[in-house]
Amino acid sequence: MADRSSVVVAPDSFKGSLSAPDAAAAIAAGVARGWPGATTRVRPMADGGEGTLDAVLRATGSSATRGAIDVEGAGGATVSAGYGIVDRAGVPTAVLEAAQVVAITDPAGMAVPVSARSSFGLGRQVRALLDRGVRHFMIGLGGSSTNDGLASLASADASGLDPRLKACAITIMSDVNNPLTGDRGATAIFGPQKGVARDRVAAIDGTLARYAEIVERAVGRRAAREAGAGAAGGLGHALMLIGGAMRSGAEVVADLVALDEALTGAAWAITGEGRSDAQTLLSKGPAVVASHARAKGVPVSLLSGAVDAFALPELGKRFDGCFALPAGPATLEACVRDAASLLADRAEAMARVYAAAFDRRSGR
Amino acid sequence: MADRSSVVVAPDSFKGSLSAPDAAAAIAAGVARGWPGATTRVRPMADGGEGTLDAVLRATGSSATRGAIDVEGAGGATVSAGYGIVDRAGVPTAVLEAAQVVAITDPAGMAVPVSARSSFGLGRQVRALLDRGVRHFMIGLGGSSTNDGLASLASADASGLDPRLKACAITIMSDVNNPLTGDRGATAIFGPQKGVARDRVAAIDGTLARYAEIVERAVGRRAAREAGAGAAGGLGHALMLIGGAMRSGAEVVADLVALDEALTGAAWAITGEGRSDAQTLLSKGPAVVASHARAKGVPVSLLSGAVDAFALPELGKRFDGCFALPAGPATLEACVRDAASLLADRAEAMARVYAAAFDRRSGR
Repeated sequence: MADRSSVVVAPDSFKGSLSAPDAAAAIAAGVARGWPGATTRVRPMADGGEGTLDAVLRATGSSATRGAIDVEGAGGATVSAGYGIVDRAGVPTAVLEAAQVVAITDPAGMAVPVSARSSFGLGRQVRALLDRGVRHFMIGLGGSSTNDGLASLASADASGLDPRLKACAITIMSDVNNPLTGDRGATAIFGPQKGVARDRVAAIDGTLARYAEIVERAVGRRAAREAGAGAAGGLGHALMLIGGAMRSGAEVVADLVALDEALTGAAWAITGEGRSDAQTLLSKGPAVVASHARAKGVPVSLLSGAVDAFALPELGKRFDGCFALPAGPATLEACVRDAASLLADRAEAMARVYAAAFDRRSGR
Repeated sequence: MADRSSVVVAPDSFKGSLSAPDAAAAIAAGVARGWPGATTRVRPMADGGEGTLDAVLRATGSSATRGAIDVEGAGGATVSAGYGIVDRAGVPTAVLEAAQVVAITDPAGMAVPVSARSSFGLGRQVRALLDRGVRHFMIGLGGSSTNDGLASLASADASGLDPRLKACAITIMSDVNNPLTGDRGATAIFGPQKGVARDRVAAIDGTLARYAEIVERAVGRRAAREAGAGAAGGLGHALMLIGGAMRSGAEVVADLVALDEALTGAAWAITGEGRSDAQTLLSKGPAVVASHARAKGVPVSLLSGAVDAFALPELGKRFDGCFALPAGPATLEACVRDAASLLADRAEAMARVYAAAFDRRSGR
């Protein structure tokens, strides 16, 4: 796979404007214009949230199949929840995305009060796949509208828990490290953006704590305090209780899209996202691409919609150059509207500089 | 001078925010951060307009002297008009800038109606330098507030023309190709921005035409239709009549700052300006830097405050990557205010990419 003039294009989505595959296509087009001698290896990234399934299916191509199962969405109305089956060393593995069932961008779910929303449909989807013989799951959390936990719960009975789950390997993809409850819990941190009134946080957090106690006792396993239990309004906790293991969503996606294979022998990598700031330094897509690239000795540049000036010194340590979309003074609206062409233009300029240095060095 | 890791930094001024020397310093600082192994050769550029004198003096350093002569500004009030004396192969040569005398940015000049403004002071400055024995002049036009020509002129007598001018070599630095009068003349094209009312253009143009006829007859030379006669409100024409030869301002500055010497053996060049658009493709500073760099086989990138999207395809042919200041959605005011730090940040990112490719290619 060694190719001294190949460029790995592995952006995350540009939220609000471009999906990761679309962003990757725009960047790749710019690279091709700026460095005609290069080949591109396109690996759209994701972090377990919305877009994860698309990124994985796009990268795995013909070795994957896409399906959809009708289940209850967050608000109760039926949604067609997509999933993928990818081949992992001969083992069919289902890639699910909570946002396919309970997306915060789903108007039908958001029309219902947060206390009435449920992630029940995701469980249905898992069961349907169990029925089809799937035993390996990778479930992306993130971008959910739900904050689970039943206020009227008095007791729980785990005897009806699907016995097939015992034979399952479940990977939970999430970048959330929050515990289920408390000051840093799901409700306190993520509740408000889902519609939990500030003055209701304490009460709902208490409900969730009681729910956790009851179900943990029933299942005979504890997880509420673990990092990530608070992901997706408590879905992290629920999946841990049935044996799921947390992994960085972006790391799992890097694995699924064979990022390391693409980086091997590559000349350069470009990643990016809608906005890069201090959050980017955590295990988001671009940070994961950067660490994998560095491990392979491949320089990696960042091309985002915007790069936060305060985070730039730190970002500068992780990336070989941080670039942003605008070609001059511009509004957010214009950047969002013209994202694809701006992205291609900026990538072209970056590639022109890279190619110039590459050719100069070789004395061509 | 061959230095495979030297970077020539040769921006024009960023009008309204940074002088060319300040812009060059910011870019050089960014390059040093982004590519610590590189050396920078700083050559601020100009095109004959405001800032030309500073750029030339900064680049020529200790071999040049700076002076100033008190003369009448455009509005009649005394201005201290700077000039430089540079050594040109043993010949002391005065570098003048019309904007030192009649700048459009001088409030005292602009407070007087355009019809009452005069470039007389520039003539005084030339005479003072003749008195000091100077016979070689390079006079930058551009950025003037004046539109010369006396409405009440009935005849002209050239017998009093300073006889020393015959022994002079006068280079007129300008990027203006307009003739003195007519549809593309000084008054029609540049008058309005100097305060000529639209309904006065024809009358003033007629005055200028009559003035040209009278003085051309007196001098015995014609110049009104020549390209550049309309530069600086007719100063181009006046200087041609006393023997001045037009040259592209940016080309003369490139010559004065020894741009070719700096480019020889350099790895890369960066140029830029406040805003790059279709005008940039004419003989403005960045275009001249690009053509000189290309001639030397040195890749050259553009880093401007803004890059016009419509001109980008053409600019892309001249430059190895076109970059702009903003790190995300930003107002013009913020870009102007933060120009120096944005410039350093962007240059650092560009240098990171260049250095990554340069090092990658060599297998370091």
